[in-house]
Amino acid sequence: MSSIISPLRYLSLSCLAFLGALLLGGCSGLEAEPLPATVVATVEELQKRALESDQAYAFLESLTVEVGHRFAGSANDARAVAWARQQLETLGFANVRTEEVTVPRWIRGTAHGEILAPFPQPVELIALGGSVGTDGALEAEVVEVASLEALDGLERQQVEGNIVFFNRRMRRTRDGSGYGEAVGVRVGGPSRAAALGARAVLIRSIGTDNDRIGHTGSLRYSDDAPRIAAAALSNPDADMLEKQLARGTVRFRLELTSRIDPQPAQSANVIGEILGREHPEEIVLLVAHLDSWDAGTGAHDNGAGCAIITAAARLIGALETPPRRTVRVLLTANEEFGLSGARAYAERYKEAFASHVVGVESDFGAGRVYAFRAKVEDRARPWVKAWAELLAPLDIAYQDDPARGGADLSVTAPFRLPIFDLRQDGTHYFDIHHTINDTLDKIDPEALKHNVAAFATIAYLAAESTEDLGRAPETPAAP
Amino acid sequence: MSSIISPLRYLSLSCLAFLGALLLGGCSGLEAEPLPATVVATVEELQKRALESDQAYAFLESLTVEVGHRFAGSANDARAVAWARQQLETLGFANVRTEEVTVPRWIRGTAHGEILAPFPQPVELIALGGSVGTDGALEAEVVEVASLEALDGLERQQVEGNIVFFNRRMRRTRDGSGYGEAVGVRVGGPSRAAALGARAVLIRSIGTDNDRIGHTGSLRYSDDAPRIAAAALSNPDADMLEKQLARGTVRFRLELTSRIDPQPAQSANVIGEILGREHPEEIVLLVAHLDSWDAGTGAHDNGAGCAIITAAARLIGALETPPRRTVRVLLTANEEFGLSGARAYAERYKEAFASHVVGVESDFGAGRVYAFRAKVEDRARPWVKAWAELLAPLDIAYQDDPARGGADLSVTAPFRLPIFDLRQDGTHYFDIHHTINDTLDKIDPEALKHNVAAFATIAYLAAESTEDLGRAPETPAAP
Repeated sequence: MSSIISPLRYLSLSCLAFLGALLLGGCSGLEAEPLPATVVATVEELQKRALESDQAYAFLESLTVEVGHRFAGSANDARAVAWARQQLETLGFANVRTEEVTVPRWIRGTAHGEILAPFPQPVELIALGGSVGTDGALEAEVVEVASLEALDGLERQQVEGNIVFFNRRMRRTRDGSGYGEAVGVRVGGPSRAAALGARAVLIRSIGTDNDRIGHTGSLRYSDDAPRIAAAALSNPDADMLEKQLARGTVRFRLELTSRIDPQPAQSANVIGEILGREHPEEIVLLVAHLDSWDAGTGAHDNGAGCAIITAAARLIGALETPPRRTVRVLLTANEEFGLSGARAYAERYKEAFASHVVGVESDFGAGRVYAFRAKVEDRARPWVKAWAELLAPLDIAYQDDPARGGADLSVTAPFRLPIFDLRQDGTHYFDIHHTINDTLDKIDPEALKHNVAAFATIAYLAAESTEDLGRAPETPAAP
Repeated sequence: MSSIISPLRYLSLSCLAFLGALLLGGCSGLEAEPLPATVVATVEELQKRALESDQAYAFLESLTVEVGHRFAGSANDARAVAWARQQLETLGFANVRTEEVTVPRWIRGTAHGEILAPFPQPVELIALGGSVGTDGALEAEVVEVASLEALDGLERQQVEGNIVFFNRRMRRTRDGSGYGEAVGVRVGGPSRAAALGARAVLIRSIGTDNDRIGHTGSLRYSDDAPRIAAAALSNPDADMLEKQLARGTVRFRLELTSRIDPQPAQSANVIGEILGREHPEEIVLLVAHLDSWDAGTGAHDNGAGCAIITAAARLIGALETPPRRTVRVLLTANEEFGLSGARAYAERYKEAFASHVVGVESDFGAGRVYAFRAKVEDRARPWVKAWAELLAPLDIAYQDDPARGGADLSVTAPFRLPIFDLRQDGTHYFDIHHTINDTLDKIDPEALKHNVAAFATIAYLAAESTEDLGRAPETPAAP
C-alpha cells in the first residue's frame, strides 16, 4: 500500500470548497481535512445513480431464475460460477477470472420425522448441513433441553439411547445478535449430545418465523464423539413437540439419508476488478459469497450480497474518472459449509494483503443499511468519520465500535486487514435464512438499491483516497 | 316451530325497562319491541364471560396437539370423531351422539415437480384434492394461461400433450371474495384442460402468501373428459415458472402418486345440545366442520370453527336459566371433499327442518367478526336488527344484505332454513388456508374469544326468543 499521502493537494482544494467547515473543524492532525468537492460530487452522483438503477435486482433475478441454489460442489454450483464469470465480463469488469477451490461435498438426501406417541403426528424438519444419516429409521424417546448448558447438567443415563431436543426460540433483533445467541446448539449440539450417548439430535429451527419450514445450516462434529444425525424442526413443529412432551413421554421416528461424499468437489472463487488509475495494485476488497444452501434460491443468502457489491463496483467502473485504487469484487465459493473460498483466497493472496486497503463484506440479506463502522488504525479514524458523513443522506449512522466483517472476512484476521461494516437491518432476515423460503419475492427492490448506494459510496471513497488505513487492531474475530 | 309469540309479556317488562327507547322508537309492528332487560343483561354477561374465557383456545389446542389433521376417512379422522364426542360429553352437552357418514377416501401419496428446461429447478407443489396420479413421471411442455376463459381461447393443438399452467394470483380481501374469483381454475381447470388434450394441470396456489408452500383444495372432474393429474405450485414457484416461460419453452416433470380408494370410508357427524327449557324441539343450529385437509393441523380450517361454536354453546349451557329453545352444535364430517356430513344431516333431518329456527356456520378461520347479516323472512327483520344492536359493543356492524352461510349450510337451501352470518376478517386467512402452515401458532387467542362472544350472543338471542324467523327467501345458494 502506498504511504504517499496527499493532504496538501486536497487541502488547497478543500479549504476553498469547505471554508466554513475548515473554520469550525480546522485542518489539524486530529481532524481529517474536508473532502475535495469533486469527491463529494462524485459520491452524490454515485448515490443518485444507485437509487435509480435496477442493476442489482436484474443481477439477482437472473441468478435466482437461471441458476437457483448453488450449494457447494453441486452441479448448480458449477453453473453459478460460469454464470457469475459471464456476468462480470458482460458488465465490463477487468481481470475477470475464476480461481479453483476444493470444497467438501455433502449430500442432503431425504429427511422424514414423525411423533409416534403419545399422539402420532408428522413433522416438518430439515437435515442440518453436514449431518450423517440415520442408517434406516431410528426410533427413540425424546429428551428436551433448553441449551448446551442444560444438556451438560444431565446424567448420562438420562441421555443415552435417546434423541436430544434443543428447544429454545431465537430472539428477533435488528442486528442479528439473536442468531449468535441461538446458533451454538446447531453447531455444537450434535457432538455434545453424542458424547452423552444420544442417538440423534433435533433442534428448534434457528429462525424467527412461524412457518412449517425448517432452517438448515452447518453443524460441526468433534473428533471425540460419535457422529450422530441432526435435524431442525420448523418452529410450529417444535411447538407441537414441546406440547406433547408436556403431556408425557414422546417417542419419535427419524430417518435421514444424508451423507458426506468422501470425494471432495471443485468450485471456484470468481473475481472481477475496476482498475485503479494511480495505484491499481492497491485493493479495496468487496466480498460476498456466491454459494448458498440447497434450500431456496439463496436470494437473500447470498445472492443479494453478490448483487449489491457487483452493482456498486459497476457504478464506480462507469465513472468518467476511475478511482485511484482498484476495487475488487470477490465472489467466494462455499462460505456456508466451511469458508473454503475465503480460505483459498487468503492462502493465495497472503503476500498481497499488505496492499489490500480494506475489506467490506455483504452477507446479511437485503435489508436497508442503518449503520457504518470501521476497524482501522486509530490514526485513520478521522478519515473514516469524514467518509461516514457522506452516508448521512442515506440515513446511515456512524458507529464508533469496531467493524467485525462477515464470516468470509474472518479469514483475514491474521493479516489484520482493515474492515468496514455497512450494517443491514436484519429484523426479518431470519424468517427465511437457510430455508426453501429464501426466494426473490422477499427482496425489497428499494432496499437493494439503498445497499448499492451505501457500498458504492464507501468503496469509492476508500478507492479514491490515498490514505493508509493501517492495519486493524487485533481483536477477536467475529464468532 | 312455535307460532305463539309473546310480545305482550315482553312489552310490559320492556316498556318499563326501556322507556326512553319506547318513546323514540315506539312499539309499532314495524319495529321490534325492545328486548327484555333480563335478556340484555344475560347477553352482556355472556359476552363478558366469552371475552374472559380460554375455553375455545383450550379446545383448539387439544384438537391440534392430540389429533392433528383429520382428513376424511383417515385414521386421524376417526380419532377426531372420538375426541370430539368425548369433548362434548366432558363439557356437559346433552344428547351427545355420533351419526355415521360415508365419505370418499382419497390418498394423497407423494408429489414431486421440477423444471427441466430452460433452467433446471426443483419446485414446491402439492396435489389437488381428488387428483389422480401421473402413473410414473410425466414430462411435457408447459402452456401458460391466465384463466378458464383464456384456455377456451386456445386451439386444441396448442394444448394437446402439454401441461396447462393456470397462472393468476388471488386477490387479498377482507371478505374472502378474492377466493371466489380465483378458485374456479382449481375446481374446474383440470377437466377443462383435459378436454383439450392436456396431460396434466398446474395452478398457481389459490392463496395470498409468498411462502414456498402449496395450497391444496378439491378439484371436480367432469364425466366428459379424461381424468388428469393436477397440482398447485407455491406462489414463489409460480413466479419462477412464469419467469422461465418469459425466457423460452419450459419442459416440466411431474410425478404424483395420488389415488382414489374405490372403497369409501366411514366417518361421522358429532352432535351435542344445550336443551331448551320451553321448546326443546326447536333448534338453533350451530355448524362447523370437524374434518380438515391432511396438510397442517387444520387450526383455522376448521378447528377454530369447532372451537368457537362449542365454546359459545357451552357458555349458554352454563347459564342459570337455559334459553327457551335448544342450541345444537353440529360438527360435520368431510366438508372439504364433498360436504358428506352436511348432506347426511340434511337427509336424516329433512322432516325436522321445519323446527330448525336458524343456522349459523363458522368456517372462515379465527379472525375477528366485523359484521352480522341475516337471511330471514322480511317480517322477522326488525327482530334481527334489534338483536344486531347487542353486537355493537363487540364492534360488529349490521349489514342489510342477505346472509349466505358457509358450504355446509348450502345443503339447507331446499329447506329454506334462515341463516345468520357472523362475518370474520379473512384478510390473512388465505395465507395459510389448505396448507401445512395452518397450525395453532397462527391463532390469535383474543380474536378467538371475540368470535365466541359473537356466536354466544346471537345463538342465545335466537334460542331465548320465541320469534318465528320464517323461511328464508329463495336466493341462489352460496357458490
